[in-house]
Amino acid sequence: MSMRSMNDKTGSFACPDVKRFQRQGIPEAIYCPGKTVEQIVAIARALTSPSGHRGPALLTRADEKIFRAVRRNFPSARFHKIARLITISPANFRGGRRAGRAEKIASAYVCVVTAGTTDIPVAEEAAVTAEALGVRVERLYDVGVAGVHRVIERREIIENAAAVVVCAGMEGALPSVVGGLARSIVIGVPTSVGYGANFGGVAALLAMLNSCAPNVATVNIDDGFGAGVIASLIIRKTAPDKK
Amino acid sequence: MSMRSMNDKTGSFACPDVKRFQRQGIPEAIYCPGKTVEQIVAIARALTSPSGHRGPALLTRADEKIFRAVRRNFPSARFHKIARLITISPANFRGGRRAGRAEKIASAYVCVVTAGTTDIPVAEEAAVTAEALGVRVERLYDVGVAGVHRVIERREIIENAAAVVVCAGMEGALPSVVGGLARSIVIGVPTSVGYGANFGGVAALLAMLNSCAPNVATVNIDDGFGAGVIASLIIRKTAPDKK
Amino acid sequence: MSMRSMNDKTGSFACPDVKRFQRQGIPEAIYCPGKTVEQIVAIARALTSPSGHRGPALLTRADEKIFRAVRRNFPSARFHKIARLITISPANFRGGRRAGRAEKIASAYVCVVTAGTTDIPVAEEAAVTAEALGVRVERLYDVGVAGVHRVIERREIIENAAAVVVCAGMEGALPSVVGGLARSIVIGVPTSVGYGANFGGVAALLAMLNSCAPNVATVNIDDGFGAGVIASLIIRKTAPDKK
Amino acid sequence: MSMRSMNDKTGSFACPDVKRFQRQGIPEAIYCPGKTVEQIVAIARALTSPSGHRGPALLTRADEKIFRAVRRNFPSARFHKIARLITISPANFRGGRRAGRAEKIASAYVCVVTAGTTDIPVAEEAAVTAEALGVRVERLYDVGVAGVHRVIERREIIENAAAVVVCAGMEGALPSVVGGLARSIVIGVPTSVGYGANFGGVAALLAMLNSCAPNVATVNIDDGFGAGVIASLIIRKTAPDKK
Amino acid sequence: MSMRSMNDKTGSFACPDVKRFQRQGIPEAIYCPGKTVEQIVAIARALTSPSGHRGPALLTRADEKIFRAVRRNFPSARFHKIARLITISPANFRGGRRAGRAEKIASAYVCVVTAGTTDIPVAEEAAVTAEALGVRVERLYDVGVAGVHRVIERREIIENAAAVVVCAGMEGALPSVVGGLARSIVIGVPTSVGYGANFGGVAALLAMLNSCAPNVATVNIDDGFGAGVIASLIIRKTAPDKK
Amino acid sequence: MSMRSMNDKTGSFACPDVKRFQRQGIPEAIYCPGKTVEQIVAIARALTSPSGHRGPALLTRADEKIFRAVRRNFPSARFHKIARLITISPANFRGGRRAGRAEKIASAYVCVVTAGTTDIPVAEEAAVTAEALGVRVERLYDVGVAGVHRVIERREIIENAAAVVVCAGMEGALPSVVGGLARSIVIGVPTSVGYGANFGGVAALLAMLNSCAPNVATVNIDDGFGAGVIASLIIRKTAPDKK
Amino acid sequence: MSMRSMNDKTGSFACPDVKRFQRQGIPEAIYCPGKTVEQIVAIARALTSPSGHRGPALLTRADEKIFRAVRRNFPSARFHKIARLITISPANFRGGRRAGRAEKIASAYVCVVTAGTTDIPVAEEAAVTAEALGVRVERLYDVGVAGVHRVIERREIIENAAAVVVCAGMEGALPSVVGGLARSIVIGVPTSVGYGANFGGVAALLAMLNSCAPNVATVNIDDGFGAGVIASLIIRKTAPDKK
Amino acid sequence: MSMRSMNDKTGSFACPDVKRFQRQGIPEAIYCPGKTVEQIVAIARALTSPSGHRGPALLTRADEKIFRAVRRNFPSARFHKIARLITISPANFRGGRRAGRAEKIASAYVCVVTAGTTDIPVAEEAAVTAEALGVRVERLYDVGVAGVHRVIERREIIENAAAVVVCAGMEGALPSVVGGLARSIVIGVPTSVGYGANFGGVAALLAMLNSCAPNVATVNIDDGFGAGVIASLIIRKTAPDKK
Repeated sequence: MSMRSMNDKTGSFACPDVKRFQRQGIPEAIYCPGKTVEQIVAIARALTSPSGHRGPALLTRADEKIFRAVRRNFPSARFHKIARLITISPANFRGGRRAGRAEKIASAYVCVVTAGTTDIPVAEEAAVTAEALGVRVERLYDVGVAGVHRVIERREIIENAAAVVVCAGMEGALPSVVGGLARSIVIGVPTSVGYGANFGGVAALLAMLNSCAPNVATVNIDDGFGAGVIASLIIRKTAPDKK
Repeated sequence: MSMRSMNDKTGSFACPDVKRFQRQGIPEAIYCPGKTVEQIVAIARALTSPSGHRGPALLTRADEKIFRAVRRNFPSARFHKIARLITISPANFRGGRRAGRAEKIASAYVCVVTAGTTDIPVAEEAAVTAEALGVRVERLYDVGVAGVHRVIERREIIENAAAVVVCAGMEGALPSVVGGLARSIVIGVPTSVGYGANFGGVAALLAMLNSCAPNVATVNIDDGFGAGVIASLIIRKTAPDKK
Repeated sequence: MSMRSMNDKTGSFACPDVKRFQRQGIPEAIYCPGKTVEQIVAIARALTSPSGHRGPALLTRADEKIFRAVRRNFPSARFHKIARLITISPANFRGGRRAGRAEKIASAYVCVVTAGTTDIPVAEEAAVTAEALGVRVERLYDVGVAGVHRVIERREIIENAAAVVVCAGMEGALPSVVGGLARSIVIGVPTSVGYGANFGGVAALLAMLNSCAPNVATVNIDDGFGAGVIASLIIRKTAPDKK
Repeated sequence: MSMRSMNDKTGSFACPDVKRFQRQGIPEAIYCPGKTVEQIVAIARALTSPSGHRGPALLTRADEKIFRAVRRNFPSARFHKIARLITISPANFRGGRRAGRAEKIASAYVCVVTAGTTDIPVAEEAAVTAEALGVRVERLYDVGVAGVHRVIERREIIENAAAVVVCAGMEGALPSVVGGLARSIVIGVPTSVGYGANFGGVAALLAMLNSCAPNVATVNIDDGFGAGVIASLIIRKTAPDKK
Repeated sequence: MSMRSMNDKTGSFACPDVKRFQRQGIPEAIYCPGKTVEQIVAIARALTSPSGHRGPALLTRADEKIFRAVRRNFPSARFHKIARLITISPANFRGGRRAGRAEKIASAYVCVVTAGTTDIPVAEEAAVTAEALGVRVERLYDVGVAGVHRVIERREIIENAAAVVVCAGMEGALPSVVGGLARSIVIGVPTSVGYGANFGGVAALLAMLNSCAPNVATVNIDDGFGAGVIASLIIRKTAPDKK
Repeated sequence: MSMRSMNDKTGSFACPDVKRFQRQGIPEAIYCPGKTVEQIVAIARALTSPSGHRGPALLTRADEKIFRAVRRNFPSARFHKIARLITISPANFRGGRRAGRAEKIASAYVCVVTAGTTDIPVAEEAAVTAEALGVRVERLYDVGVAGVHRVIERREIIENAAAVVVCAGMEGALPSVVGGLARSIVIGVPTSVGYGANFGGVAALLAMLNSCAPNVATVNIDDGFGAGVIASLIIRKTAPDKK
Repeated sequence: MSMRSMNDKTGSFACPDVKRFQRQGIPEAIYCPGKTVEQIVAIARALTSPSGHRGPALLTRADEKIFRAVRRNFPSARFHKIARLITISPANFRGGRRAGRAEKIASAYVCVVTAGTTDIPVAEEAAVTAEALGVRVERLYDVGVAGVHRVIERREIIENAAAVVVCAGMEGALPSVVGGLARSIVIGVPTSVGYGANFGGVAALLAMLNSCAPNVATVNIDDGFGAGVIASLIIRKTAPDKK
Repeated sequence: MSMRSMNDKTGSFACPDVKRFQRQGIPEAIYCPGKTVEQIVAIARALTSPSGHRGPALLTRADEKIFRAVRRNFPSARFHKIARLITISPANFRGGRRAGRAEKIASAYVCVVTAGTTDIPVAEEAAVTAEALGVRVERLYDVGVAGVHRVIERREIIENAAAVVVCAGMEGALPSVVGGLARSIVIGVPTSVGYGANFGGVAALLAMLNSCAPNVATVNIDDGFGAGVIASLIIRKTAPDKK
């Protein structure tokens, strides 16, 4: 059966949760791997239609090829290459970066930290997601625990953050150290950086789950998007329709 | 070598982080399994001494026998039996439940949810921890997904919470459903409730890490204490010495 | 040794169970990966020969290249692209879709459900398999638990199904929710959709095995074919030679 | 906090799904491990009250001590020792074994099979569950694959069953052999019987999930209760309120 | 450092066990993956030199490209394509197939069995290895347990074998059934055939290790070579230098 | 349901394979854990009755309590304490140790080796099983690889064995070393001796499966019985009814 | 067979490597779990006999009961309770603590570090082992990474050590931080301290294996003895017979 | 965001630990996979700048393409092809090979051993790392345990080494045998050489962690670099700034 005939049968192959942004302040994300470009565009259109959720749409794990197709349909789409993320702001979406910019000056920020340089793509996914939701982000990259003076010398930026996202692969120890410095919650993002007994990020994941710092919560391996959403919710805390 | 001679040698066998509460607003917890009663009392004394951290001390996974020994040294200690938690409030600690009570009326609360009745001990560990830190808690127990009407009928209490803690064993599906309802972050606590291919909570842990609701963060299996601390930090957000 | 010389030695390299359809009403399936096109065609010929099993032959995980070779030998073969499935109906096979169509009006149907759009190929494998066996199928796609209202609003189609197939990746929570709504058994099909701690479908598999809904049975990761066969057997229940 | 004070706070510690039997024809089961005797009795009372679900209540993994407490509250409770199962039939429940007996003569039965004698407790949990739901059961025990003539000589009882439950530990191969003989679906129940690389039933579980017989569906390790419910639903197929 | 400079330093990069055939009657095998063609040829030359082990050299997991390079150096080399095996018989090797042929008529044989057609490459690796060592082989392919009559109808060839090699993927149940029929030991070879919860052959491996037939021994996943050597040793039993 | 009533219903709760010894020369073994003493005695009686299999019955993983009950029914039963094995020789069984003794002088023997002293119970299970089947056994204990001179000094006993059983826990390296010395096959028995990353014998199991000595075959963790049967079959090679 | 009769047969049940101390400077250790008290005493006697290895014998994972039996045979035996270690110094052993004491003043020391107080038993096993071999030990306990100032304030003792042993459970992050401070190698000892996704020390083990500090080597979970031996060898570096 | 704009924002995307060599005598290594060529060159430049660490920079898992880019920036860079390692010696680095050469004659050496030829790339990574740090290396390749005479005949080179690095895949048994011969510590490097139940080096890793030779410490799978650093530190023992 072709895609078309399936659509004829079911009315629609997809049933996106178009009200999520109004209901929860969480953008609908489209995880691109395993979807055709046609599916991606169709879902993005449903989300951003007038009856849709009126917040930004985020396309995660995207590449240049997907971006070219998306931009043909959404001229305002932006591709954040390192983050592998496409953001689409619907016409009627005010807020986001502009409103966020004012808010940034006045208030809280998320600190996004990495242990090494190879963790940066995941960190950027978190940072750009938060920025797309209007949240101020401070970056602190390549400060892993084998040279612990690096993070300690910069501890003030951690202490004052409203939420901290820490991306680390290999042994995943950095969230525990940061967790002992922060006054807020720390969202550990294990990355799949490493080899051998790292098992694609499992070593880092287990380290974060077993952190002796009780303020560390964990998301899935390489899930920068989730960490960005969680950090944003902590800062915004109230649903956007109440603003 | 006896415990005593080791102490003679090292000055002290333990080096508790007595300033954590001032620094971070996080209470020092003593995880009891694997420690002797003598060690537990000694660490508790260090924490609550005038030079200590001046916040509540929490003794997790405690039992009646430990409580009897603790109470001889700390008459104000309380044992929360279902939560398997002992709380010690030092003399100079104001706040906690009293200050919290005023705060409760005016402001935010944590909603603690369980999928089944067997998850309650873990949920109580989270709830009592939050209450010891002066945070209001609303409980919603035994509303697992196989009868999903139970949680949907009570969705208002979830929507309005400043943070939601969801404890679930077996397939650990409840945080995803709650994550789709909440306007705040959801802290998933996988419990070791189940048998067979549950692998002591691993099935629930993996479910929460892979949640399709992006606002779900996860802590270790049965880690009610961590969830309670995280939920409290979200509500209090600023360190207590700044209040 | 070449394929030919091996055949010379053993009489035949394959020993397909040509009577399975008569004996059990289960079509013989050829799992294509790891087989050469020549092997696939040869086995298909044995199955559909006059002495063969006289039911449909199903070629799973097929692709365009295999289909082109198969069609040269079996002009009536059809390729269900999304399902990656080739169906071959032997000349003397009556029933299947035609007989099934009459049956459909009068009686029971299988409801095939997915959590997301990326689960659709597996769901289509189940649906097309059931249809090839003459069973009516209702599709309900992209109704995952993070927006649980989607499945609850459509619960009638689940309640009235004679069997429900639920395909879900990531945390695999949907079968538990559906299991709490259905009056029939629910066949959970974990899919390999996800990343990180999903471990290629293991997270979803464990969730389904540990479902708190007791009417959920599970098949292998991505095994849409098996789910389609099981759902069909429940509806037909009596062996075809008794019809 | 004592159990009592928790109840005072929450109204009720448990929120059982009292309408499940009417809604789905599935009895509410109470999994006993990890619950106090008081909790077990309280939940059982809620289920069997006039406003309750009016079907049988099943208490799984029970022991003599639990039974003595239950019988004091429910004189009609019966303890199935080998199955480790307590059944409670509420006063207004007609059907069950009596109605079932008439039905047995006229119609379908479930065949419950074991590979070895040590698998019998799990098999009895399945069999007694099905009987409590009014379904006829035929038992076929200790016919494992290392003496495959045993099951082949008795194949007629398998061929004619409306559903087959196969309990096997160790290598869990029996469902595949039975799956090749049956005309109905086979519900594989891996048991934790074995040692070493059996990993508490994982070897058998994987075998059943990977069965080359496509009519095999699997439930959790040692989950006789689930298998009994599923087999019963296949036979009854229509919800009890439609009878 | 280049390969050459390393050789200059160490005298030789390889230290093959050139006396193994005389000492044990086991051919030295060269596992090709991860070795350069140059390394493969150099090791083969060392083995087959006059001071070498004077038995056949076997190159496992080879491909056409390796074969072309090998044949340039060893004109008598043969490539067994399905088995992915190259055999090199040194000039002074008498025995092997010729001596074996006489022995074949008079005496014992190894029976090599597969569950499906996709297991054949592994089975051929075992069969060709045994034949290279002068042992008679009977093949019995595609007789998996879901149609158990296939193997039972051919049980005589199993009962009379001096050793049986059974290659099976998916649930790996066939060695248990064969183990219940054979009068000799059964060497189970799990294959990586399957998908999902098969985990690259782990499901089949665990099944064989947990076989309820006590005469089943197991080798590594896809290790047809090892099974061929073991089966040959059982038949020859005495070291070749005693012949 | 009591054991008795279950028996009334099913005719018999057990269906032992009473002809196995005649058919295959393999004794029926009763794995004691998880069986009641009554079940054990009943199965043993079925096996040793005049219509039974007329070979020795072996009761593995037995203890003193089981032995006392067994001896009341089978006065000739012997308990091999270190091996945790009970052997029962039926009245009409000739052969075993006596016949074996004559055979011992004339012919082949099995060499049973351990790496450490803690592996001895498993080794004795293998050795006593082989002796019960009339096979001569030579023991070589506590010769692990960290003092490799121990096994090399005794290599002659290994070289001349018709089969070698090697029991090793921890890293399980000994079978590879022995495999490089033996002229026969080596049956590796991983033991659960060890701690930490040994994972109850998994480390040793994996080592044996991956042995670079191709003549090593592996059985389940702690499966001394299986190793004893396999070693005996190699020596006897022809079924006992042909003797 | 009783222990005695087995001994009669084999000459000796154990074959300890009595020359190891002379050959390598490594004491023979007796791992007590799984051995009878009689076996332990017998092996200790062999090791400490005039023909034995003339170094200290260490009995690991011992308890009071074993110590009482050992002391009856070796009056000079000492029990290190927290380390669960018994040390026996043979009469002719000079060196060890006495000679070591002189050496201590003059030269290098091992620094033994723990993350928490519950890791102390493992740390003491390492420390006492090193001391029994005449090596000076400095202890630094309870300085885990969630309060990273604790270890940084004490960094001088780490920087000047000739070798550092770091014992840590939970997320096992401390060796990475210490590895970034030390000028020597760091021996990471994962401990089984923790719960849930710690998996009995696996989380800590993986963290240490994946440490981003390249000077970290790892031993088995809870293997304080091995760490003590390795640290001692680094300090002593030359075999004792060369002293 | 492009790489450039990210740099603009953060000042620098990387924060290398430029003082590590002075502080610890450990070279900073750049693990190449997952980094762009631009990142690699930029980090290398920071490390080797006048304010940098003044020791050698090592680029691990490099390939020809990376080398070509590196050489354009660092003409003195050398590519060790088999080791997949690029070494860069800054202008002001004296010592290393030259100073090392004098030291080599006078003193200690590291012995690097492999079990097979396929383990050589990992061994060369260790050897070249040690040589880059001025340490003398003796190579002993292809001496695996299945022909244990090979290593025993060459035992003198092992006995006299100051540290031994043993690289082994498959069952990873060689470190235990070497551990029983050496007078120094043995650093086991599990390699990912093998297939099937080797699980990418896990079998070898577990073997080394469970070694019965207590002087074996382990590093990550394929981590030749770490082993080279550790071996060098043992030999040099004092920090380079003290030389």
